[in-house]
Amino acid sequence: MKNIIDNFNGPHDVNSMNVNELELFAAEIRQFLIDKVSKTGGHLASNLGVVELTLSLLKVFNMEKDKLIWDVGHQAYVYKILTGRKEQFDTLRCFGGLSGFLKREESKYDQFEAGHSSTSLSAGLGFALARDLKKENYEVISIIGDGALTGGMALEALNDIGYRKTKIVIVLNDNNMSIAENVGGISTYLSKLRVGPKYNKIKNDVNSTLMKIPTVGKGVADSIHRIKNGLKQIVVEKMFFEDIGIKYIGPIDGHNIREMTDVLSMVKNIDGPVLIHTITKKGKGYEFAEKNPNKFHGIGPFDCSSGKVTVSSKNSYSKAFGEEMVRLGEKHKNLVAITAAMPDGTGLNKFSKIYKNRFFDVGIAEQHAVTLAAGMASQGLKPVFAVYSTFLQRAYDQVLHDVCMQNLPVIFAIDRAGIVGEDGETHQGVFDLSYLSHMPNMTILAPKCIDELKTMLNWAVVQDYPIAIRYPRGGDNLNVSLSPLKNFKLGKWEVLYGEGNITLIATGKMVQVAVLVKEKLETMNIQASVINAWSIKPIDKSMIKEIVSKGKTIVTLEDNVIRGGFGSQVLEYVNTINDSCKVINLGFNDEFIPHGKVDLLFKVYELDVQGIVRKIISNLS
Amino acid sequence: MKNIIDNFNGPHDVNSMNVNELELFAAEIRQFLIDKVSKTGGHLASNLGVVELTLSLLKVFNMEKDKLIWDVGHQAYVYKILTGRKEQFDTLRCFGGLSGFLKREESKYDQFEAGHSSTSLSAGLGFALARDLKKENYEVISIIGDGALTGGMALEALNDIGYRKTKIVIVLNDNNMSIAENVGGISTYLSKLRVGPKYNKIKNDVNSTLMKIPTVGKGVADSIHRIKNGLKQIVVEKMFFEDIGIKYIGPIDGHNIREMTDVLSMVKNIDGPVLIHTITKKGKGYEFAEKNPNKFHGIGPFDCSSGKVTVSSKNSYSKAFGEEMVRLGEKHKNLVAITAAMPDGTGLNKFSKIYKNRFFDVGIAEQHAVTLAAGMASQGLKPVFAVYSTFLQRAYDQVLHDVCMQNLPVIFAIDRAGIVGEDGETHQGVFDLSYLSHMPNMTILAPKCIDELKTMLNWAVVQDYPIAIRYPRGGDNLNVSLSPLKNFKLGKWEVLYGEGNITLIATGKMVQVAVLVKEKLETMNIQASVINAWSIKPIDKSMIKEIVSKGKTIVTLEDNVIRGGFGSQVLEYVNTINDSCKVINLGFNDEFIPHGKVDLLFKVYELDVQGIVRKIISNLS
Repeated sequence: MKNIIDNFNGPHDVNSMNVNELELFAAEIRQFLIDKVSKTGGHLASNLGVVELTLSLLKVFNMEKDKLIWDVGHQAYVYKILTGRKEQFDTLRCFGGLSGFLKREESKYDQFEAGHSSTSLSAGLGFALARDLKKENYEVISIIGDGALTGGMALEALNDIGYRKTKIVIVLNDNNMSIAENVGGISTYLSKLRVGPKYNKIKNDVNSTLMKIPTVGKGVADSIHRIKNGLKQIVVEKMFFEDIGIKYIGPIDGHNIREMTDVLSMVKNIDGPVLIHTITKKGKGYEFAEKNPNKFHGIGPFDCSSGKVTVSSKNSYSKAFGEEMVRLGEKHKNLVAITAAMPDGTGLNKFSKIYKNRFFDVGIAEQHAVTLAAGMASQGLKPVFAVYSTFLQRAYDQVLHDVCMQNLPVIFAIDRAGIVGEDGETHQGVFDLSYLSHMPNMTILAPKCIDELKTMLNWAVVQDYPIAIRYPRGGDNLNVSLSPLKNFKLGKWEVLYGEGNITLIATGKMVQVAVLVKEKLETMNIQASVINAWSIKPIDKSMIKEIVSKGKTIVTLEDNVIRGGFGSQVLEYVNTINDSCKVINLGFNDEFIPHGKVDLLFKVYELDVQGIVRKIISNLS
Repeated sequence: MKNIIDNFNGPHDVNSMNVNELELFAAEIRQFLIDKVSKTGGHLASNLGVVELTLSLLKVFNMEKDKLIWDVGHQAYVYKILTGRKEQFDTLRCFGGLSGFLKREESKYDQFEAGHSSTSLSAGLGFALARDLKKENYEVISIIGDGALTGGMALEALNDIGYRKTKIVIVLNDNNMSIAENVGGISTYLSKLRVGPKYNKIKNDVNSTLMKIPTVGKGVADSIHRIKNGLKQIVVEKMFFEDIGIKYIGPIDGHNIREMTDVLSMVKNIDGPVLIHTITKKGKGYEFAEKNPNKFHGIGPFDCSSGKVTVSSKNSYSKAFGEEMVRLGEKHKNLVAITAAMPDGTGLNKFSKIYKNRFFDVGIAEQHAVTLAAGMASQGLKPVFAVYSTFLQRAYDQVLHDVCMQNLPVIFAIDRAGIVGEDGETHQGVFDLSYLSHMPNMTILAPKCIDELKTMLNWAVVQDYPIAIRYPRGGDNLNVSLSPLKNFKLGKWEVLYGEGNITLIATGKMVQVAVLVKEKLETMNIQASVINAWSIKPIDKSMIKEIVSKGKTIVTLEDNVIRGGFGSQVLEYVNTINDSCKVINLGFNDEFIPHGKVDLLFKVYELDVQGIVRKIISNLS
């Protein structure tokens, strides 16, 4: 029997398929996804959950004209397959290959890019308002998960959408999860809706809504005719969405293509904003992913038949952080941990189980997380907010205005700082040193190795001012063995190697690179000293003064953009004390860093040992 | 007759007053406020609106123990008067005097500081959770306006509050306004609640709610006894707040002290989160402010009997921006304007009236505003988001992740950049150059004078990449007359004066200061050239190269923090081409700048002409 997937030519092919064909196609796509992602790694569970949803959207809407806007976009693999990118799927998340998210450069079908959550409603409203003003004629469909719906900007957007009355279709993809389980009042509320009247009743509801619209399309008139048994108003009474001006339809089984295409066809004829509440299952159709959707959210290569990850995970900063938090929780009764929907990724899982009442998962709500921490800190608790560097960007103002301005002792445990690799530009944590270091009262630290993260954390929890500790994704460089610093004195750096005319001042994982650079330079008869700048702010002014007075060349090393980062801070200070000292700032240039393996990206951007040595030599000559 | 206000000793005095006394006291406080603010200027209308509300809170709660958390805090003047700061009221918003917002250093009664909106719920939940963990016993009351409720972080907090079930009292101060009129679906929804059943029915409702609580306090039992006519469930059906797990009580007349104190006393005995919906009138009791609350939101000194502002407003950047937008709107049909609840402050009022369908006030929702603009820009519109520098901080991630990453042509018209004066640390716009300049693809401009803002805007609206234009509060320095640049070439600076061994490279309004510095230096026989660095990013590399090659000293001038700002960008570049050129970076140091008059702050922080000359001389010697 001929496969559909091998003979499929583009989104228009979906338009002409009937429901039976679409169901067969769904099974093929699912198999394709499991095969491919088991080799490349990637976001599997969320994509398995939207196979039928995506097919239904492409069946009903016209992708040459209508605009689909995916929230985050890691669940758009099916969409990529259906819009001409099946053949490139082996290159998924590889440097130069397919992005794991939407990318406008990649395809004309990718309308809007994202990697952070909760943006699709704001963007969609922008599309819809532009359409209206330009008197164009297309549908705008924003897809958003129930987890993303708790993000403040999505709620801001709902508020505006309900008010403007512009036509926009919101598909709420409700799998009762963000990455981990969902939390919050809205989630509880959605649970109530989930058990509401099912599809047959919904059909009536849709029709009764349509009856009130003056001009009713032919297709709709037909549906109304088809369904005879009454037109009762059975929408779940007054509710959240309807209260603020958005029509609600649901819940609908997101894996039932017939129901989905029926409802989507009908909403085409409804004016104003409509929200379709679809229930899907994360990991659907692959038993291991259904059982453990969290593990299969973002996963490395795995064995299809057993569901086991093929590369065993080595020690990581996240893991060490989690372990140390458990130990510290025992010692410090005022220690509390906060996460924004990332209990696993940040390593807080164990803490959350042992210290249930001192663990707070606030959902995808970084802004609230930070100011909540500020409130707690003002009342004598010691909150640690564990968050990825790129997501803390969401709470820039809260860190500055609520924590730093009041000088409150909140600890930011910033995971995934620097290059994260395969997730690409939306996820690289290469801005935090720049956006945190100009905040008055902020202290910024980075451990040079995993063990130092532990000693550092012990020191940080007894300080009484805001502290950010940044550390990278993954683990240590196995070719370098470093002992952790044990006695911390704020703003006093550690000298690892003291000789040489060149002084390498490195932060975080770049200290490991610096040690290798020093060794490489030695083979070229260049002596370099290595300093562990574990305190990024404040910098060690007296040590810099001493280096400058000896007339040495300073090379700063950071896995952050150079602009406004660590090296620039060193440079600013050197400039105030002496203008003849040579300073070489190495880090990332002023550009977004795409996806690819971490080591490869360091090589490409010349921040690996070879690249750094090359740059130093060319700067000295 | 003896005045209450003159014999009042502290919050405990309010506890012992009866309703009649409190009503008399309210009238006195109102008169006191009008008298004082007419002389100092400040936030009047919002404070007149909360006189009875504040008195009621202090009557019912114990300020030695319970915690009141005010959102924003510009409506806390009454609270300041009642908590021992009446005598200092003449110093309101003056350098070294009373802050116009809450300040923990100022009083033990100020629990949490803010100046940006929508933070009081997150902070309040932090207090409540800390109380529970520490097994302490006090009430937490968060006060929030209906405008602030549309801010994403407030909605994130509501979601979390409804979920946690911790006891917290939320007072929704609903005056149907933020600064200007309110917008959005939530606002529409609140309007419906406003016309709901009034106090008598509410009383019943509260009691019927209390009946369900196992342990009922004596006072409550009394109330129940007192009210005999039935215990109907008359809460406005299922609703937003109740849906997500927060008890709703309201609406209540916020100017009726008897009703307010009654209800507040009763909620003391309710477990879990409760929201009290109070209706107040902005400007209440002062006819001019009631009629024009927007004008009296934040106002300069005015004449009490006529309500007229005593100092006539001169030309300002905001006004010029608004006028130019009107002209540009005629020429460019794809130009749209966006504001986050600031149509007046940003100067967009006229535009909003002439181009109704191209003007979008999204409410206090900066994050949504930015990504909405990104969506619009991707579909061929040219959105201009007019926003204060300090409030754009809320949308840091959206600017970076949604606009810059996709290189979308959104224009950010950043008003109130630099020092804003009397509003103090929460409002100073001294970080934008630091937080924007490390964003790849971002272009940052600043006009040297009001007329240049106009020519610059004309140029910017026809470019096709993200552009931020920053300009200060107020107008130009009347002692300097400069002609606007008319031909802009990106990254090519304007030389205003070409001679001298010192090169002053200044941005925005600091160009005016630089001209005066140059004149002052001349009287000391030091020749300086002056460059208008209107393009802050990109910098003019070829001009810098030329300056450096001539061996001149560079002095950079900016009204931003030095760390990561404009000067540091120049320094980073100079460092890559030559290490013997002297660069002096002048701007604000790494600290928060308090309130005070703009000119005074420039003097105190040595960024006035005298201070700059002094610093240059000391650096050269």
